[in-house]
Amino acid sequence: MKAIHDALIMRLNGEQLDELIDQIAAEIPFALIVNDQLLVTLVCTPTELDAMAIGFLLSEGILTERESLLDIAVDEKGATVSVTLKKLPNGFDQIAQRKTITSGCGQGVTFSDGANLESLPVNQVQIKASPDYIRALLKKFRSVSDLFQKTGGIHSAALADGNEIILFAEDIGRHNAVDKLIGRAFLDNIPLDDKILLSSGRISGEIMTKVIRNKIPILVSRTAPTCMSLTYAEDHGITLIGFARVNRMNIYTHPQRISFEVKGTG
Amino acid sequence: MKAIHDALIMRLNGEQLDELIDQIAAEIPFALIVNDQLLVTLVCTPTELDAMAIGFLLSEGILTERESLLDIAVDEKGATVSVTLKKLPNGFDQIAQRKTITSGCGQGVTFSDGANLESLPVNQVQIKASPDYIRALLKKFRSVSDLFQKTGGIHSAALADGNEIILFAEDIGRHNAVDKLIGRAFLDNIPLDDKILLSSGRISGEIMTKVIRNKIPILVSRTAPTCMSLTYAEDHGITLIGFARVNRMNIYTHPQRISFEVKGTG
Repeated sequence: MKAIHDALIMRLNGEQLDELIDQIAAEIPFALIVNDQLLVTLVCTPTELDAMAIGFLLSEGILTERESLLDIAVDEKGATVSVTLKKLPNGFDQIAQRKTITSGCGQGVTFSDGANLESLPVNQVQIKASPDYIRALLKKFRSVSDLFQKTGGIHSAALADGNEIILFAEDIGRHNAVDKLIGRAFLDNIPLDDKILLSSGRISGEIMTKVIRNKIPILVSRTAPTCMSLTYAEDHGITLIGFARVNRMNIYTHPQRISFEVKGTG
Repeated sequence: MKAIHDALIMRLNGEQLDELIDQIAAEIPFALIVNDQLLVTLVCTPTELDAMAIGFLLSEGILTERESLLDIAVDEKGATVSVTLKKLPNGFDQIAQRKTITSGCGQGVTFSDGANLESLPVNQVQIKASPDYIRALLKKFRSVSDLFQKTGGIHSAALADGNEIILFAEDIGRHNAVDKLIGRAFLDNIPLDDKILLSSGRISGEIMTKVIRNKIPILVSRTAPTCMSLTYAEDHGITLIGFARVNRMNIYTHPQRISFEVKGTG
């Protein structure tokens, strides 16, 4: 399915009114079915539906072990993704009915609660990043986001190891882009506990919950975190960097994973 | 409750590392209880919880008539908003269990389906706006968004009549800002069918569903619409303007509500 569509629009430019073909981001609903039971209908950019489904299940704590994933079948025409799991979490039926509408950037839904997650050991420093490396990543991250440049309003997420960006995902939904990235990493057998996640969007408590649950030690955003995400990051050992730009960045929590060789004022 | 909190952070500026107090957007979960039944937990900026609750119920088609609202009680400490309605929509129990996770900018939830909504009559032109007026509104909209300037990453929405901006709402959630605005208009007895809605954020199918359901004839966004929102707008008689800037704007659908006095190329 195509991530962008052409549409005939009118553009007013100064006092000049023109008709032109513009590119618009697609958005489709698909049903996520787990062991023959409808879990939710997700709406996303119609790419990487397998990664989207798996990432969502990982972020929600419904898929917890690699061995549990028996099958995944994407039916684009029927707009369904069917996942077969060997093991459902305790109380799956209740999980499927519980829902919290988060701030998302819209009103995200989550079945889970960030407060009860396992923490990353604070002294687990499997990856360390220098400010210069983070700056280089950000530069690459921006240039790679090519769908964004075509339609506007697309969010992107990227995964980097100690050397470079290794995965990239885009979606009209900020949370979806992160889920697609997490799902792709799982499907490609890429561990997350020594990686850096880059996000184009604001960091809410819900995004931070995904990061904690998937044990990604460093999260870098181009924009702002909320109080809830900051508290979750502090409590769960995640290094959170926001407003990351070429010249400056804010380090909100756990700076032990940033290798400073800079002069401080303190 | 406070919409922003102070936090001690580290800022790297070039090679200079400083500690400073920064302002972070708050985000709280609250339980929305309808006739003693938990409908959902919403997460939002902790302001205007009454408007947020009512706007959500209006946007979801759960509150449909003014006379149905018997009582609304906000308990900030208990983090609940309890709404008493005289009349619940048919199949309310099913509504409360059905859920679609939309792209939001995160993964928004909605209980409703945009495709089945009543349309605005295409020839209903209770308000007409000139490009110059829209430009003036946009300028005002930006200057009014003061919370945004403090913390970054806050979305805003405004409601304008033929003369000026009459309501303004802010939230960390793009959809929440729109719901707060719609709820406030309802609580203040302001009709929506002759107004212009301004939104700082991307227009997804879910936002458009709120606009259609509340019969707001003109929607102006500073950024991009998705295909789904464009289709909904076209089908339901909504005038949709995107990428609205001081110099240019895209008119996607139903230009009959825009009063052009400009030269075209066609």
